[in-house]
Parts: sequence; structure tokens; C-alpha cells
Amino acid sequence: MIDMASIAAKRMTEIRLLQRRDWPATWAIIEPVFRAGETYAFPPDISEEETYEIWVEKPTATFVAVSGNGEVLGTYYIKPNQPGPGSHVCNCGYIVAERARGRGIASGMCEHSQREAAARGFRAMQYNLVVATNESAVRLWQHHGFETVGTLAGAFRHPREGFVDAFLMYKQLAT
Amino acid sequence: MIDMASIAAKRMTEIRLLQRRDWPATWAIIEPVFRAGETYAFPPDISEEETYEIWVEKPTATFVAVSGNGEVLGTYYIKPNQPGPGSHVCNCGYIVAERARGRGIASGMCEHSQREAAARGFRAMQYNLVVATNESAVRLWQHHGFETVGTLAGAFRHPREGFVDAFLMYKQLAT
Repeated sequence: MIDMASIAAKRMTEIRLLQRRDWPATWAIIEPVFRAGETYAFPPDISEEETYEIWVEKPTATFVAVSGNGEVLGTYYIKPNQPGPGSHVCNCGYIVAERARGRGIASGMCEHSQREAAARGFRAMQYNLVVATNESAVRLWQHHGFETVGTLAGAFRHPREGFVDAFLMYKQLAT
Repeated sequence: MIDMASIAAKRMTEIRLLQRRDWPATWAIIEPVFRAGETYAFPPDISEEETYEIWVEKPTATFVAVSGNGEVLGTYYIKPNQPGPGSHVCNCGYIVAERARGRGIASGMCEHSQREAAARGFRAMQYNLVVATNESAVRLWQHHGFETVGTLAGAFRHPREGFVDAFLMYKQLAT
């Protein structure tokens, strides 16, 4: 079945570099995800300033997915996963606004990030800690060609589930 | 065959917290390893100041293996591999002075680090990027109970071998 709403959302959504003025809206979609502590290995009580540092200042580039009417619906960063002789492998983190889920925005950002990564000379993309309970993310990354290269037993402390496994996912990029 | 020299070296070698006055001797054994660029994902031209930051300041603790006559023969650090909900998994890095290799010092530091990790409440230890060409390290970690949970294809740029694989190795600790 063709999901017309999803196609329309993708058409109307633009992915572009984050600008300083996008930050308040971007923080508004990141904050509840970090506070929940279910998917990212950041302290749930992380401050807005620390988040800006890890999401915007330290990465190579940070993007926002913006709707036709200028609303920030998603964001992702791209950065080298390791320095020096490991710096040709990148790492990305993605967040979609809760109200905008199921509209293909994460897929759109994943595809965009792979093109950006290749254009910037990265040869592979690595997700270090995909929480096993985050099944929709695992499926999505698999769909986009990421391989689960390893399982880290009990590597994530979930606020309700306790110690759960995390996956290391990896994809070599066309160069 | 019992390796008496190795046993003697282990007996005479003390592993203790690095103190500020140990740094020059510690840097002297780290520098050639980082400059060679064959085993660690740090820029080969890293400065002494940057190395002090990543090896001593940022980690939870840094240790030195010291011979009976006070010579620094090896060093390792221990730190959380991820923040927040991933901070119960630690990461360590180990370096043995070239002149002191084959004497069981890396093994001694690996065992010491697992005890330290457990005592500090870590539940697992993760090596993020064990370069596949570093075969003695791979064997050593396997010997100490680390599992190769995944292979990162071409994740390390070796100065002579080009892009080589790296292993992610992991061990759950007795708690």
C-alpha cells in the first residue's frame, strides 16, 4: 500500500544544516528523548548547554529536518567515530519529534546522512549502541543496509527494563 | 614450560596509580606507540598535552606498571565507555614499553584492570577498536576471556597495510 501521507511529508520536508536560530526548536525535540533515557547513552539530567556541545559543537555537522511551514521535525549529527586512523568511519545520531514519527523522517535523515558522509569522505558509518528494546530503530537501520555486527550484552541500563543488550551496527559506504 | 623470567618479572612488577612524577617516563613509552599509528586510533602527531588529557585527565583512573627498581614498564587507563545509561561498561587502553614486552606485563595489567573495574562497579569491559593486524593483542584479550563480538570492516587505516579490519571485544565482569 502506498502511504500517501508519508510521501507528502517526505516531499515537504527539507533537510538542511542547523543554524543557530534552529536551536530552541531542536532542543525541544531532543530534550524529552534524552530525559526519557531509553535510547541514548547520555545522562537523563544532561543540561541544554551540554547537549548543544555534544549535538552541535563537537560534531562535524548537524542537520535539521524542517517541514514546509518551517517547523523542526527532526535532527541528526555526523562526526568521526574515532580520531586519527579511525576517523574515516563516521557516527551519526538521529532524533525525530514525537509528533512527527511514522512519516519517514528518520529514513529521510538516514539516507541524507549517508550521502553527506560519502561526500565528506567517510568510508563507513557506525552506530555504537543501538538499544535492543528500540526495535523500530533496529529495523529501520537494517532496512537501510546496516548490519548488526555485534551484540553488547547488558550494555544499556534501561529505566524500566534494567540492563538490556545493545547492538553495534555498521555499514560500509559506496566511495 | 614454566617461564621463570616471566614469573620473576610479574613478581617484581608493581601496578599502582600513576602519579604526576611518573608522567615523563609514561609519555616516553606511549609516544613511540602513538607515533607509529599501528594500534591506537589517535592522530600520530598527537601532542604530549593532548595525550595527557586523554590518558590521564579524562579517564577515571590511570595506572603504571613499575619494575622493582622504579622503572615504568607499562600503563593503562580505565574509564566509562559511554556516559549515562552506558556508563557501567568500561573501556581500558594498555601500553607496554617496547623493551619490556613478552614479560607478562600486559597480562598483569589486564587482570589488574578487571579487578579495578569490578571494584569500581563496572559490569563489563569493552575494547572498541582492536586492530586486526595487532594479533598478539587479539590473542591476549581472548586468553583473558574477551569475546570478539564484532568485526568492523576496514575501520582502521594502518600506515603500511592500508584499511584493515578492527574487532570489538567485550567481557562481562563478575559482579
